[in-house]
Amino acid sequence: MYRGEGDTVAEPDDIYEKVMELAKRRGFIWPSAEIYGGVAGLIDYGPLGAQMKRRIEDAWRAFYVIREGFYEIECPTVGIEPIYVASGHVKGFSDKMCQCPHCEEYLRADHVAAGAGIDGAAGMTTEALAGCLRMLPCTACGEELGEVKVFDFNLMFNTWIGPGSQRKGYLRPETAQGIFTDFPRLLRFYRDKLPFGAVQVGKSYRNEISPRQGMIRLREFTQAEAEIFVHPEGKRHPRFDRYALYEVPLLGCSAQEAKEEPVRMTMREAVEKGLVANEYVAYYIALTCDILVSIGVDPARLRFRQHLTTERAHYAADCWDAEFLSKRFGWVELVGIADRTDYDLKAHAGVSGVALTAYIPLETPRVERRRRILPDMKALGPKFRGKAKQVADALVEADPGPGGVEVTVDGEKVLIPASLYQVRDEDVEVRGVEVMPHVIEPSYGIDRMCYAVLEHAYTEDMVEGELRRVLRLPARVAPVQAGVFPLVSRDGLDRVAREIADALTGAGIFTEFDESGAIGRRYRRQDEIGTPYAVTVDYQTLEDGTVTVRERDSMAQVRVKRAALPGTLQGLIAGTLAFSSLGK
Amino acid sequence: MYRGEGDTVAEPDDIYEKVMELAKRRGFIWPSAEIYGGVAGLIDYGPLGAQMKRRIEDAWRAFYVIREGFYEIECPTVGIEPIYVASGHVKGFSDKMCQCPHCEEYLRADHVAAGAGIDGAAGMTTEALAGCLRMLPCTACGEELGEVKVFDFNLMFNTWIGPGSQRKGYLRPETAQGIFTDFPRLLRFYRDKLPFGAVQVGKSYRNEISPRQGMIRLREFTQAEAEIFVHPEGKRHPRFDRYALYEVPLLGCSAQEAKEEPVRMTMREAVEKGLVANEYVAYYIALTCDILVSIGVDPARLRFRQHLTTERAHYAADCWDAEFLSKRFGWVELVGIADRTDYDLKAHAGVSGVALTAYIPLETPRVERRRRILPDMKALGPKFRGKAKQVADALVEADPGPGGVEVTVDGEKVLIPASLYQVRDEDVEVRGVEVMPHVIEPSYGIDRMCYAVLEHAYTEDMVEGELRRVLRLPARVAPVQAGVFPLVSRDGLDRVAREIADALTGAGIFTEFDESGAIGRRYRRQDEIGTPYAVTVDYQTLEDGTVTVRERDSMAQVRVKRAALPGTLQGLIAGTLAFSSLGK
Repeated sequence: MYRGEGDTVAEPDDIYEKVMELAKRRGFIWPSAEIYGGVAGLIDYGPLGAQMKRRIEDAWRAFYVIREGFYEIECPTVGIEPIYVASGHVKGFSDKMCQCPHCEEYLRADHVAAGAGIDGAAGMTTEALAGCLRMLPCTACGEELGEVKVFDFNLMFNTWIGPGSQRKGYLRPETAQGIFTDFPRLLRFYRDKLPFGAVQVGKSYRNEISPRQGMIRLREFTQAEAEIFVHPEGKRHPRFDRYALYEVPLLGCSAQEAKEEPVRMTMREAVEKGLVANEYVAYYIALTCDILVSIGVDPARLRFRQHLTTERAHYAADCWDAEFLSKRFGWVELVGIADRTDYDLKAHAGVSGVALTAYIPLETPRVERRRRILPDMKALGPKFRGKAKQVADALVEADPGPGGVEVTVDGEKVLIPASLYQVRDEDVEVRGVEVMPHVIEPSYGIDRMCYAVLEHAYTEDMVEGELRRVLRLPARVAPVQAGVFPLVSRDGLDRVAREIADALTGAGIFTEFDESGAIGRRYRRQDEIGTPYAVTVDYQTLEDGTVTVRERDSMAQVRVKRAALPGTLQGLIAGTLAFSSLGK
Repeated sequence: MYRGEGDTVAEPDDIYEKVMELAKRRGFIWPSAEIYGGVAGLIDYGPLGAQMKRRIEDAWRAFYVIREGFYEIECPTVGIEPIYVASGHVKGFSDKMCQCPHCEEYLRADHVAAGAGIDGAAGMTTEALAGCLRMLPCTACGEELGEVKVFDFNLMFNTWIGPGSQRKGYLRPETAQGIFTDFPRLLRFYRDKLPFGAVQVGKSYRNEISPRQGMIRLREFTQAEAEIFVHPEGKRHPRFDRYALYEVPLLGCSAQEAKEEPVRMTMREAVEKGLVANEYVAYYIALTCDILVSIGVDPARLRFRQHLTTERAHYAADCWDAEFLSKRFGWVELVGIADRTDYDLKAHAGVSGVALTAYIPLETPRVERRRRILPDMKALGPKFRGKAKQVADALVEADPGPGGVEVTVDGEKVLIPASLYQVRDEDVEVRGVEVMPHVIEPSYGIDRMCYAVLEHAYTEDMVEGELRRVLRLPARVAPVQAGVFPLVSRDGLDRVAREIADALTGAGIFTEFDESGAIGRRYRRQDEIGTPYAVTVDYQTLEDGTVTVRERDSMAQVRVKRAALPGTLQGLIAGTLAFSSLGK
């Protein structure tokens, strides 16, 4: 059974333990480098886990890439320092840490304080935290911490690119920055029109101080992020109608402060009431709910919580987290949906010196009165000689004052008297404006989604006096989609069953052939990994060409003609066919 | 136009420059972090490149995961040190480097020597290389290198996991090690039976000294690797028939030494002649050829080259590279296919202390005579007191000599005289044996495959006096599969065209709608990115419900009923329908 480093032993009926025991035994999730003792915060996806994870990523792409039409890009995970200077990660991406003087364990200082019931630990300064910790016991060894130093630990993994410590590099803490730095190229790709979106699915890294929550807090994890670039004054979503009447449980700031429950509300109402900042944020809240439910998160254990003003980044216009309810961990963030305004583009423009704006043509050109300086080259020439051209160029860009203009030439300030130029007011036709787009960012944690799906899918029931463990995964994310069993491995049943398994595989259905053990045991094996349908080949198959199809959740069985089987299963898996309609 | 750091300016008709110009302009490949000046050895896949790359990865999975039935797993890219001590990368994964004393540029010492025409530079010692370099000019600044130190530079990116420099970590240099370290779990997943295979597709890293070859030599790249665990005495492939008569151009060791050309040969012949070591290696050579041709590598510019004994790892029983011919780079490795014997499992078993073997039941149990020691506890007890049990346990495992047995207890050697035990020869029934599997490894470089596909697909022709650039990509890897154009954006043609585009998207066909510019220009735009089919909606569409479908390569057009369009395009893309059969 896999546990994060330092986890306490849990109750035997803890659902987390049960899910992880199954996940480990059946090949969903394994400790990474287990033969070397494992590593906290790193996991391997085994054969079934990797398959499920890919299906979840593809379900995500079905929404964002195929339906929304946002192209996916792929940037390296290793990035150079200026990117993360601009993004603020070099300076601000850190956790408060201390080291126990007794056992030398590194601890998240704020977690120790919060665990001891101290309010507001997450927002405290290092000094305030050190003060709180003095009387508290170390969470690792139990000794009183006493005088400990609390300091900031940057959570980016760092490395060097090239030999001789040529360039400092970081493992990206989020995929988003690659999209921001590609903004000029993306804008051209989308033919200079707003809005447009780009997405990325890939690994991100966070060098956690002491990860103890299995798949919830990983040092290497997979994100799926969308960055949607919109006109700052165009936050009405062009396809808002799709989700205007979609209801989502929303827990706003003031409801949290008043300790109220989430309220189910349509997106139109949420925007009209001002609870959600704009249609874009609302649209992606609804779309996120749509995705999460489609992959198997229980809608009754899902809510959208607005960031409190204290936790929200200062630049964000609004921010909501999709959270799922875990029996073990409580409410856990799965997705963050934020209106990040022009914060990111502005930051990268500032550090890189590249203009990250879009030229937006005006529908009707407008005329603006502009004051222009016309340098008098005949006067400037003799006075500034070789530098006359530079002075003239600087003059054109300058703002004329009453006594002249101060310009900078070769780093030197020069006052140019009004006699050396003319000022003319002109009517200029303005055909377009440079605009720095705002960014709407829905950001998904794929590993947490995998865990949420597993926990919400896990059920136990008693069948004929025996415990049956079932993963009630939606067919679209179940790693194996059909089990195929010969009733017995003789009389040609095994040969027919293999032919059927091959035909299903050929039809794009991921199939497992199993001929070992009693048929009931084979059903249980598939139930446990969430296989939605099992096909059994029996003696009747040889007579009339039908097989039985068993549905995992109802355990109901129906006979289907062998030739119709691939189409039937495709329909069941795609959700275009109901099992209850079969055989009628 | 993207070039690796330090590239020389190429001929304007260099195909590499043309391909990369197109790739950059149209959104296939972009320099990474371009607004910060880019980074050598790192690239971004833009919208079309990422889509094409994913299609190539999925084509690979269609062979390895779906057809071969090998499950995919996903391990972290960050790994702890013992993994890479065992794999040999900590000690041996390095390049010979020197620094120019004049311009301070870091250089690959062997490349400098080889570039100056010195034979065998790749295999030289650091001292020998330093000797060669003395009279050679620096490849960066042109000054004579003189006395330079040549040293080994380890190519793994390193980092620290956790705070306080807790554990040294490396970015994996290959995905394979994650599969090896998961061997015990994979074996159980496959119910303890050999052979079985597992695959991984993901990022790997190589901190190149001075990467200068664009997509050919990257610091971060994507691999697709399969590790197939076979019985050491079971190297006949169970499905060899599939490729027994498949012909592949093979360039063996002796042909290379004799400067001969590759020979086309069936796999059966290659194995029977002893050119390829066994059926497993031959099977994956053929399968690799099958994959590469299916994604668009030109079979006339593809060969399989056997590693020379000097370049082959000492433990490998055989090793072949799939190489494509690049107009710019010459023959370049795309895939390596090796019989790695038990080298990897033995190495990890040695360092981890975990037995990495499979228990193989014998078909018929055999009886073996075994000599057993039976300790005489009555005699040992008084003599060794508290340690008697340890001595007895050590005795059972020992080999009896004539004068007694030497055993080690608590690190101390003790001679146990024969009077303290009995020796008995027994017949033991042996029902199975522990076997350390051998590993067959086909390892694919996805980025190089992407480049090979682009270079081999790139063509230019003259159409109506104008240069037409075409990527002749197979439909299965083309990023956009269909363009949909209204002849004009009025009279309802645009509305109908949008409906058709939506219907195609709904049918799983990646479609681009384009209504801007002359129709000929829209065709060219799609030709350039390799879109195999373009659909035009014209006035006849409104009358009889047909649209024109144009094939990229032949530029032939045919009218198809609107209702039949999704099925027709699906068939054309899947290759089950020929364009020439349409409209007949």
